[in-house]
Amino acid sequence: MTTVNQKIVLAEMPQGAVGPEHFSLEVEDLGPLEEGQVRIAVDYISIDAFIRTTLRDGSFHQSVGVGGTIGALGAGHVIDTGSEQFHVGDAVKGPVGAQTVATVPAQYLETVDESLAPLSAHLGALGLTTGLTAWVGVRDIGRPQPGETFVVSAAAGAVGSIAGQIARMDGARVIGIAGGPAKAAHLVDELGFDAAIDYKNDDVAARLRELAPDGVNVYFDNVGGELLDVVLDQMAERGRIVICGAISQYERTGDVRGPSLYLRLAERQCRMEGFAVFHFPESYAPATAELAGWLADGSIVMTEQVVTGIERFPEALETMFTGGNVGKLLVHIERQDEG
Amino acid sequence: MTTVNQKIVLAEMPQGAVGPEHFSLEVEDLGPLEEGQVRIAVDYISIDAFIRTTLRDGSFHQSVGVGGTIGALGAGHVIDTGSEQFHVGDAVKGPVGAQTVATVPAQYLETVDESLAPLSAHLGALGLTTGLTAWVGVRDIGRPQPGETFVVSAAAGAVGSIAGQIARMDGARVIGIAGGPAKAAHLVDELGFDAAIDYKNDDVAARLRELAPDGVNVYFDNVGGELLDVVLDQMAERGRIVICGAISQYERTGDVRGPSLYLRLAERQCRMEGFAVFHFPESYAPATAELAGWLADGSIVMTEQVVTGIERFPEALETMFTGGNVGKLLVHIERQDEG
Repeated sequence: MTTVNQKIVLAEMPQGAVGPEHFSLEVEDLGPLEEGQVRIAVDYISIDAFIRTTLRDGSFHQSVGVGGTIGALGAGHVIDTGSEQFHVGDAVKGPVGAQTVATVPAQYLETVDESLAPLSAHLGALGLTTGLTAWVGVRDIGRPQPGETFVVSAAAGAVGSIAGQIARMDGARVIGIAGGPAKAAHLVDELGFDAAIDYKNDDVAARLRELAPDGVNVYFDNVGGELLDVVLDQMAERGRIVICGAISQYERTGDVRGPSLYLRLAERQCRMEGFAVFHFPESYAPATAELAGWLADGSIVMTEQVVTGIERFPEALETMFTGGNVGKLLVHIERQDEG
Repeated sequence: MTTVNQKIVLAEMPQGAVGPEHFSLEVEDLGPLEEGQVRIAVDYISIDAFIRTTLRDGSFHQSVGVGGTIGALGAGHVIDTGSEQFHVGDAVKGPVGAQTVATVPAQYLETVDESLAPLSAHLGALGLTTGLTAWVGVRDIGRPQPGETFVVSAAAGAVGSIAGQIARMDGARVIGIAGGPAKAAHLVDELGFDAAIDYKNDDVAARLRELAPDGVNVYFDNVGGELLDVVLDQMAERGRIVICGAISQYERTGDVRGPSLYLRLAERQCRMEGFAVFHFPESYAPATAELAGWLADGSIVMTEQVVTGIERFPEALETMFTGGNVGKLLVHIERQDEG
């Protein structure tokens, strides 16, 4: 039996912004499974900012070379198995890559409980790169206290929107920074943030001074660049800056723009702390349980933006870097039985 | 009775490097003391990097305008008093300014116990901007553990040399970065550091890789700039960067150079934390007691570099910014009774 796989490969190493020209769609017949491997019909592919950082030499994340399949997390169902751990029909998630049928070593996969939440939510609110990242950044690093002011950038994005909602649940006053009036309204009206700043139309520094006259206690940064300096300038004493990501910088070809106001850290007794979720495996279980509970009872909302068809993966990635998404961005692969 | 004071005033706001042209020496007759003030014959003026940051508009530290007396910490003896707290002959320290006779509100001064250590040591090893700053940065912020690798920049300077010695006492392996072979030798031979890197002659990145193959656990940064990026690139997981100062940046007229490798914080789960000693008043007493004990029993060494004569204050400040000093740099004012 052969199985046809459609995969997105790197056609050309991007130098700046990613576009469709950097990718191509290839079709291949897959041979029989090797021992220890599991074959998955992929239902959802998670679009994450870190994908961009794999498209360069010497990345922190593993690099993808020209001709290689783009790495990505995803979820799907087992269609063939070379491991006793997994059975045909099991729902699983893991590093499936940007393809319709993935062949993955069993040890990289985990079973997904679809009774807990729909499959897509296991990549979003319950996903490692999204909900768990937000939970760790808020609970293990930033630790907002009741009454403190918590500011989050890329707040309408997947991580930002969950981070803000967790901080609110913990009693902080939450201000989200996002691009455009629609996203700003979404933060306040649908996610329950206390306030939003539209960086495309507002004077961020002036609005922040109005909204947080006593300064920012916790800044959860997904953006980096100039915005990081704007918020650094308004940190309260003993504030914490959580470095989760720097989406503004991932497409730069030259040096990353470092925060030129980093001496505010010394002046105001602040701390800037970075993290990667995989350093906190001990938090996965409590975070997943808590997030699943909140999701089930409606305490948190995870908006999903779904693009259908593997051929639209490059477009989806571009959307993320041009700020076109609200909430969790996913590529959905329709199964034959879904017709 | 009139008293003659000689003071260094700002003649011209410096744009880049400070030089003698930015200062002038003025002589004035001081009138009678007001209630609550104390008049001090200054013996020592402490040369600190922060002085440079007061010579600009809108400084974190209080700014000095053209014609104003340069601010500085110092120590001396009371010659006239308008406060019951202080008596003629008392040894005191505080913000005396760059002058020979200071008139200071009593609440800014503290009595100095000359039996504990010589007057100059109360500005150096036991001084707020030197020994106490080093102690707080090591003990309250960086917290090196036994066996960890501790790197300090401007290591032959007053703060750096004490910071490294405290870290060694706490069981860390200490590597100092300083400019020139003489300073490097001083660190190892006289201060007992485990190793030194001469940034003027060594390839710092290569030497650091050799000396700290498992990465840097604590970096105590007094310098900022490019060096901060070099060390950021070699931080171990869960490392701590203590932002104490950034002497390389204080004379820049444009933006401070932010650390472009700050995303290492996220990649390696590191923390960058700034501090100012005055946020840790609760540490003053234990730090002073411990440092005085170590100084008395020879466990730590505080080299002093003393320049005599108030007219040489500008030269001393310039020396600090051109890396010309080893240890604590002080201006000594000879008293008339010293001849």
